[in-house]
Amino acid sequence: MSRYTRRQWLQTSGALSLASLSAAPVETLAGSENLPPNIPGWTKNMGAPFLSPAYGAPSLYEQHVKRALLPHPGPYPTASRTPLQSLHGIITPNGLVFERHHAGFPAISPQDQRLMIHGMVDRPLIFTMEEIARFPSESKIYFIECSGNSALELKKPTGVTVQDTHGMVSCCEWTGVRLSTVLQEAGVHKDASWLLAEGADASSMTRSIPMSKVMDDAMLVYAQNGEMLRPEQGYPLRLLLPGFEGNMSVKWLRRLKLGSQPWQSREETSAYTDLLPDGKALQFTFHMEVKSVITSPSGGQKINNHGFHEIRGLAWSGRGKIKSVEVSIDGGIHWRPAAIQEPVLSKALVRFRLPWKWHGETALIQSRATDESGHVQPTRQQLINEKGLNFYYHNNAIQSWLINTEGDVKNVHS
Amino acid sequence: MSRYTRRQWLQTSGALSLASLSAAPVETLAGSENLPPNIPGWTKNMGAPFLSPAYGAPSLYEQHVKRALLPHPGPYPTASRTPLQSLHGIITPNGLVFERHHAGFPAISPQDQRLMIHGMVDRPLIFTMEEIARFPSESKIYFIECSGNSALELKKPTGVTVQDTHGMVSCCEWTGVRLSTVLQEAGVHKDASWLLAEGADASSMTRSIPMSKVMDDAMLVYAQNGEMLRPEQGYPLRLLLPGFEGNMSVKWLRRLKLGSQPWQSREETSAYTDLLPDGKALQFTFHMEVKSVITSPSGGQKINNHGFHEIRGLAWSGRGKIKSVEVSIDGGIHWRPAAIQEPVLSKALVRFRLPWKWHGETALIQSRATDESGHVQPTRQQLINEKGLNFYYHNNAIQSWLINTEGDVKNVHS
Repeated sequence: MSRYTRRQWLQTSGALSLASLSAAPVETLAGSENLPPNIPGWTKNMGAPFLSPAYGAPSLYEQHVKRALLPHPGPYPTASRTPLQSLHGIITPNGLVFERHHAGFPAISPQDQRLMIHGMVDRPLIFTMEEIARFPSESKIYFIECSGNSALELKKPTGVTVQDTHGMVSCCEWTGVRLSTVLQEAGVHKDASWLLAEGADASSMTRSIPMSKVMDDAMLVYAQNGEMLRPEQGYPLRLLLPGFEGNMSVKWLRRLKLGSQPWQSREETSAYTDLLPDGKALQFTFHMEVKSVITSPSGGQKINNHGFHEIRGLAWSGRGKIKSVEVSIDGGIHWRPAAIQEPVLSKALVRFRLPWKWHGETALIQSRATDESGHVQPTRQQLINEKGLNFYYHNNAIQSWLINTEGDVKNVHS
Repeated sequence: MSRYTRRQWLQTSGALSLASLSAAPVETLAGSENLPPNIPGWTKNMGAPFLSPAYGAPSLYEQHVKRALLPHPGPYPTASRTPLQSLHGIITPNGLVFERHHAGFPAISPQDQRLMIHGMVDRPLIFTMEEIARFPSESKIYFIECSGNSALELKKPTGVTVQDTHGMVSCCEWTGVRLSTVLQEAGVHKDASWLLAEGADASSMTRSIPMSKVMDDAMLVYAQNGEMLRPEQGYPLRLLLPGFEGNMSVKWLRRLKLGSQPWQSREETSAYTDLLPDGKALQFTFHMEVKSVITSPSGGQKINNHGFHEIRGLAWSGRGKIKSVEVSIDGGIHWRPAAIQEPVLSKALVRFRLPWKWHGETALIQSRATDESGHVQPTRQQLINEKGLNFYYHNNAIQSWLINTEGDVKNVHS
């Protein structure tokens, strides 16, 4: 990975000229060497006291930055999307982390929370939250992506913004205990090869997880971005399977059962499988494959100025670290390496950036990520060649944004 | 740095026995192999819909986790502290980042925000927020600490909790543009050696900054933890001087002036200097020196169980990366190396942990950090020997928590 130097940036931008930046002419500063040309009201008068001292909130000027609810046939919405077009860096603030729940989110008292471990174990156990919090802890920055993220984009360009097309991915610093540490207390039988995880919400969300993942990096998580889990994220306890499809990181976790084969729950037979052209379905497609998207400029935005712009986006892979991201401004004919922000963490979002100069020409911009396992993000056509058009989940195709001569950015298929 | 293995943990804890964990006896599971012993209401009934879909909030069970206001002689409080005792990992959620302002916080419209750069430059310039956002961006995880953090602890143990004693430090992922990049547009004169930064709040906070820091890693920041700056953190634009005392990272930034000597502003003459025993004052003590504190167990908490506990805390240094953290349970006679959570980032909080078994004995627990520059966190007596008792800012002394036989944890001087 590389970082472009200022020299490179100047070569690309031709330097940010005064004109291109619409900077105020020097004349306006005459006679005011020590002060800006005006003293606004907010400098002349005392500011606000602590309006919400206990727990702060965003500026009133940022109310447009919000999660968006998905259309819903049921009694109320079951998912919301993160406004990636308005975010910076790799951390998703807790108030804007995408949500998906199958029966609303329960209000669980941490005093009443219990986690049972049973099945193929020597000692069935029930833990309280206080007991779980006493275990050796760890903190890791990981993304979580819904397997249905970008699903509606496969057949035709559907979303207007990147929130619509890719907003079911978020990235937090999660704190909890290694699942393997807790399981060892119960004495897992050597021939146990699968684990059932069950949520305590009214949908009793259940998924089967291979023991290889359980013993690798699975966590029992109670905190996100420093504070306790948010209610919609599984408060007070959730499973976290880094890099696996989001629904497997079961929220409001109440039960773990060890067994020797998958349970074939509703969520892994009727739902969360990928229908192939021959009528068979791919089951247990755990990994979220390598993916990236340009968040600026992105769908629904308008480029207001000719000259220097920085193309910015996010990349991630459920198989480990992102190795490289390339950007094309001509619909995939030529590719240039983007700079990647350090530190690059395994199974976490990565921020990429590329300097670009736009002079009003039509441009078809795309990003393509490669992960350390060697997987390269496919084009939509490559994905269709492999899996047909009947599948719904796991669309990690390259996203195209078309910029017209007016600077309007639109979601298209290239 | 090291990470303790499960074997080490078992040796320390003697394994978490069923008894020590107060786990439910196996009998309660009889006849319920497939289900926990009860089905709570939150599993039987649909959960809540999206109560606050646009922007989420913590669980109602977490309302005790809040910033605490400092006592204030003025019209309203001017500072609040972060509840470190309730936090996990290294990221401070935006709602709980500590605050310090000298005249309340202004409500600045991003459309009306301007940043002027003038003084010893070829081209005085004024930038809008839109122009600043177009520059090449970067995202970095850095702590910010008020130089007055722990000040009241020097003469006698004053705070009850670690929020009281150390709560004026927080850590976020900040996004913005390198200050050096923006300054180059103005053409800084070669003999410019100092920069004046001025805030737009009613206190017009002003500080002088050496150009070596400006050209090293100083940033103009507009986002924290993914979203735009919070109002109390300088919305829409602040300076960030990684590792320097917090007040120098001027918030609500309106003006930067290049010069050849420090301006001797009020905030660097009457305030933010350290009075020495001989009546002279240390001025321009920029760096926040290496420091650490145990957050669990910490003051005001009570240890409820004998047996295994994990000692957890935070360490940081304004001079770079933390190299090691040691923990003592006997008031500094013996020290053991703590495990440090990766990734260890320069000028960011670091989470450390040490397994510990408590059997009801009195314990005096302390942590001591060393940074990559070789600085070692001093004892309070070492600090007093060096600087006397008249100084107020920059108290980075080792913190002691006394645990009595009942498990009560108290702030003491060792």
